[in-house]
Formats: sequence, structure tokens, C-alpha cells
Amino acid sequence: MAICAQSPFKPVNLSPHSPSPTHKSPFICKLSLSSHSTHSPLTTEPTPLLTSVTTFAPATVANLGPGFDFLGCAVDGLGDFVSLSVDPSVHPGQLSISSISGDASSKLSKDPLLNCAGISALAAMKLLNIRSVGLSLSLQKGLPLGSGLGSSAASAAAAAVAVNSLFGSPLSPLDLVHAGLESESKVSGYHADNIAPAIMGGFILIRSYEPLDLMKLEFPETNDLYFVLVSPEFEAPTKKMRAALPKEIGMPHHIWNSSQAAALVAAVLMGDVEGIGKAMSSDKVVEPRRAPLIPGMMAVKKAAIEGGAFGCTISGAGPTAVAVTDREEKGREIGERMVEAFWKEGGLKAAAVIQKLDRVGARVVSSVPR
Amino acid sequence: MAICAQSPFKPVNLSPHSPSPTHKSPFICKLSLSSHSTHSPLTTEPTPLLTSVTTFAPATVANLGPGFDFLGCAVDGLGDFVSLSVDPSVHPGQLSISSISGDASSKLSKDPLLNCAGISALAAMKLLNIRSVGLSLSLQKGLPLGSGLGSSAASAAAAAVAVNSLFGSPLSPLDLVHAGLESESKVSGYHADNIAPAIMGGFILIRSYEPLDLMKLEFPETNDLYFVLVSPEFEAPTKKMRAALPKEIGMPHHIWNSSQAAALVAAVLMGDVEGIGKAMSSDKVVEPRRAPLIPGMMAVKKAAIEGGAFGCTISGAGPTAVAVTDREEKGREIGERMVEAFWKEGGLKAAAVIQKLDRVGARVVSSVPR
Repeated sequence: MAICAQSPFKPVNLSPHSPSPTHKSPFICKLSLSSHSTHSPLTTEPTPLLTSVTTFAPATVANLGPGFDFLGCAVDGLGDFVSLSVDPSVHPGQLSISSISGDASSKLSKDPLLNCAGISALAAMKLLNIRSVGLSLSLQKGLPLGSGLGSSAASAAAAAVAVNSLFGSPLSPLDLVHAGLESESKVSGYHADNIAPAIMGGFILIRSYEPLDLMKLEFPETNDLYFVLVSPEFEAPTKKMRAALPKEIGMPHHIWNSSQAAALVAAVLMGDVEGIGKAMSSDKVVEPRRAPLIPGMMAVKKAAIEGGAFGCTISGAGPTAVAVTDREEKGREIGERMVEAFWKEGGLKAAAVIQKLDRVGARVVSSVPR
Repeated sequence: MAICAQSPFKPVNLSPHSPSPTHKSPFICKLSLSSHSTHSPLTTEPTPLLTSVTTFAPATVANLGPGFDFLGCAVDGLGDFVSLSVDPSVHPGQLSISSISGDASSKLSKDPLLNCAGISALAAMKLLNIRSVGLSLSLQKGLPLGSGLGSSAASAAAAAVAVNSLFGSPLSPLDLVHAGLESESKVSGYHADNIAPAIMGGFILIRSYEPLDLMKLEFPETNDLYFVLVSPEFEAPTKKMRAALPKEIGMPHHIWNSSQAAALVAAVLMGDVEGIGKAMSSDKVVEPRRAPLIPGMMAVKKAAIEGGAFGCTISGAGPTAVAVTDREEKGREIGERMVEAFWKEGGLKAAAVIQKLDRVGARVVSSVPR
């Protein structure tokens, strides 16, 4: 069954894109943790400063070719919303999910322990040591599930930031990533390459998990970077996608992919969109194993490059294909070619959107003070 | 037999460090080549603009841990000199090596076809299409052989730049790397991670060989980076060093090393010396196999870190150990500890020098116009 509706993308226009108070992040965030999930909660319980808050968290592209499992970036204009309010009818210290809307809503549980937003919100509440107030959460899914665009991470990021904002944002971005990771680990594995950019925005390199050490890679403000995201109506077989990974990598491919990952990061910091595309396109380890599992993917990549994209690869574990360019108009042409290739070579209907890099990450879009 | 003299390092002081005319290199050098060595020569033969020229090329640290086989940097104050002159007694289009001086001189051939500087100079002459002038070369070795500091590359780089300068520098830095690669491929394998930084200076990422695609990674001018280079009296068994490399790398180590290589490059561009050290120290693929072949190396690394170094690894294929720090004085303390550890744990005498990053690469130090 195809899990994407015919038009899987609902671009959102948020203005202004002002960062929430949680985004005073240092360039490099470091925090030593003794284990994955036992980050110490606050000793004093904060009181809510807001009655309710609505947050947005962006879609994310993980892996980016040779950055498999340690690199991801956030994409503007696509994502999930969470509204959170203090609710006297909810038992103090607990969370209730009042509603889920959007195309994917019927597939999601309202049990907070079985829902990405719920798990992440509860983890944030635990870090904040919330015991005296009950919260009610409403989730508006803008992203399709299982598309390779970090749908679960967007929900988790929006929820964690909502909880934090309601209480005056005492948690750091790294704390929020930890909260989101609790959700991600239950849904798609203990990987931060979606949740970290969903929370922090931009390009994030995960340097280590023990301790969690993240680097935000600043893409120069003056340069333009557009992502062409083409999502086919196809359910990527997640287990097969993991099983397809090679267990061992020969030294020449290891050296090649390492050098391309390094070149990718250098290109990001240097604002070199062509270099980003070239490196993104160069994966010899993961993409060759996974692309054949997505009908038409290799033809889509070829069509993107022939259409003038600087590079193209699989977004996350797919099935979305991601290409990069420096001009929106060119991006539209590239997208059309990619959609056509998915249809002609893969027999799949697909939809394309062109979006900019999201530099901000999860943020408050509206709030009601107490 | 130990190949290093008791004091293997002869720091040189070159002032001013003005770049030669060959160093107007673009930030990224790209050149498509159809094969390794058939870069097209000039169609018109240039005439010499100088009677003689003396060049210097710096020592280089290749690999830097997770940058195995694709990353290297140049180190100021250590290196080789080449003096080159138009010599009517030499058959037109040919090269003669008139003298070789320095501690390592007795081990080197004066046959230009069997000498790094000679091979590289002849390759540069071929690229320049020199047929009417004979040249005489004198090599002054400042670097010990087989120490892991790019001794052969320094000779090759100084020679290629000398030839180019003599004829008004029509060759690009990438041409010069090609010339140097002809030498390197005969001496230590087709790797550009020493010759490229020896010619271009700074940190160089080798993105691909076909075509040769090099990225110069600019370490910010305002930041200080010191290398502590500790060279033991020990001949690293080159064949064993290559044979020790794993043929296959497990996926977790592949991901880890790729992410560290990416972090290393990011740290260089961000001027984060601590980050450089941390990433340099993090290799789980090559260093664990090679370090045990150099007596005391693991203890030397431990001593460097305990002494305050941000990181430490094997320079090139060893036996030199390289640590990084941001202060010269601290570098000296670290060096003393490392020398002590080589002696106590490896039974090896060693010498330490503290040097800055060389940002310029091979350059003209003096010349006589025609």
C-alpha cells in the first residue's frame, strides 16, 4: 500500500522565522552523558509561563549520501505542528493527546507512549521534572509517514520544543535532542541524524553518541541552497533497507566514502552548493545497495543530474529522492524530470517540491501567555 | 638500522614566507585528466626567465588519523631545498643532479631517474616541453628519509616548483602536483596526501584522482596551530605498515571513521584546534593496526594527551608521532613527555620539534634573473 497521498507535501509558510528562545545554541554543543537516556532532570520543577504554545519542526534529510548515519539537514517549509496547553483535566505530571490531524493521522496512536510526539513530550517533561501540571497535546502532521523526510523526528522535535517553551525554555538544544532521541529510538533506531537537525536546524554532524556530541555546520547566509524533494507513492521496505546495508566495506570504498563525507562537510562550510551536490552523489557504500530497492531511483538520479542538479541521492532510507541546486526555477525543472523518471522507469507516481535549507529548526510559531 | 640521525630535525627559518608566483591557486583546483600521467605538455616551449633558483618545500603530515590516504597538511620550518640552474654543459632537454647534501644524502641516487627530485623535475620539464635547455639540480635534504614526514614529497615538490619558476611559472599548482605524483608513485605509491600539501601548503583534501580534484581547506589566519612532531630512531617497516591495514572494515567503524574525518575537516575550516586534535585522535581503522608496529607508540599518544595535547596519532606511515596544541610552550612540554614515553615504553631515542602549520607550501627562496 502506498503510504503517501497523491500530494504528499503541504508546504507551510511561517513568517517570521524567528528562532524560539531555545535556539541560543552554541556552535558546538557538548554534553557528557553516562548513558543514552538518563540525562539528569531539573531538581526544581519550573512553572508554566505560557497557557498554550504552538510549535513547528521541519522535515529533515538524513545521510546525504556519504554522511550515512551521522549527517543530516533541515528543510524549510515542510513539517509538523504541535499545539500544547496546560490542561487541568489531565492528571498532574501526565500528558494527553487530544487530537491528531493531517493525512497521516489515521495511522497514528493517541496513546502518548505509542506516539512520537507523545514519547518526546514525556521525555522533555521528565527532564523538566514536571509533576504538578497536566498537559494536552494536539499534533498536526504535515509530513507523510515513512517517506524518508524525518516525519517521526519532526513530530518529536515539535513536541519537545513545545514542552520546553511552555516552561520558559530551561532545556538546551542538546537536552531536546535527547528527549527526541527517546522517541526516535523506539520508532526508527537510536539515530540523531533526523532529530538533531529537526531541533537545531541547518546541517548537523553527529560526532559521537557517548557522549552525544553534535556540530552545527553553518552554511553561509549569503548563499542559496535548494533541495528538490521527489517523493514517490511507494512504501520503502524499512527492514529491507537496513538489511541491504553491507556488513563489511572494502578499504578502497571506505577511503572513498570517508573522503566524500569530508568533502561534503567542507562544501557546506564553504557555501559550495556544487561541491555539496557532487559529494552527496558520490556514495559507493549505501546508495548502490538501497537504490535498487526503490523502483526507478537510479533513473531519477540520472534525470536530476541531466536536468542540471549538482547531485542527487536517497533522502534518509527513502523512498524520497533529494537533489540540490542553487536556483529555485532550475529546481522546478529538475523536479519535473525526476517525477517523470519515477513514472517512466519505476512506474511510480511522485510529487516534487523545491525547498530551501531550514537554518532555524523547531520553533515557536504562536503562544498564549498566562 | 635506524635511519634517523640523533637530531633528525633541522628547522629552517625562511623569511619572508612569500608565496612564489605559482601560488595564485584557486581555492579549489580541478582538472580533468584521462590518465594518471599524461597531462598534456605545453605546445610552445618557454624560455628560462632565471639563471638559477632555489626553492624550499615543507614537511607534510599525511593521514591525520581518520583522513587516511586523502588528507594531509604542511608543516612550517622543516623541509628540503632544491637549487636549479640553466647549465650549458647539460644536454638540452636533460637534467643532471650535481650534488646532494644533508644527513640522508648518502642514501640517495644522483641518477635523476632514481631520485625523487629528479623524477619530479623531469616530469615538470616534460609538462613545460623543455627541449632546448639543460638543467642542473642540487638537492639539500633537511628531512630524514622514511620518517613519515613526507621526505620524498618535499624533494619532489621543491624540484617541480624550481623547474616551473625557472621558466616563469606557467604551470598551475595542480600541474605541479601531477609532476610530483610521478615521483611519489615510484617511491611510495600513487598518493597525493604528501605531495599536494607540500606544493600547495595548508590542509589539502584529495577528493578524487580521476580526475585529480583537490580542496585546499583554509585554516583561519587568526588562529594558532602547533604540531608536536616526535621522531624516534626506528625504521618503520613500510611493507608491514601497508600489510597491517585491514582489507575490510565493519559498518560501525566505517561510519565512525567517516564521521571523524568529516569532523576533522569541519574543525580545520572552523579553526577549532581542539576539534582537530579530537578527530585526529579518533581513528579506529588504521592506527589500531599500525601503532603496535612502532614500539611505544600507544604510550606516546597517551603521554601527549596527558600532557595537554588535543590529539595525537601517527604521522603518515610513521614512525613519527604527531600531536597538536594551540600554544608553542605547551607544545614543548608535550614533546618532552612524548620523547620520554618513546624511551621508557619503546626503548627508542627520539627527538621532538614544535612547528606551525605551513600555509604556503613549496616556494622560491632566492633567484638570479637572466
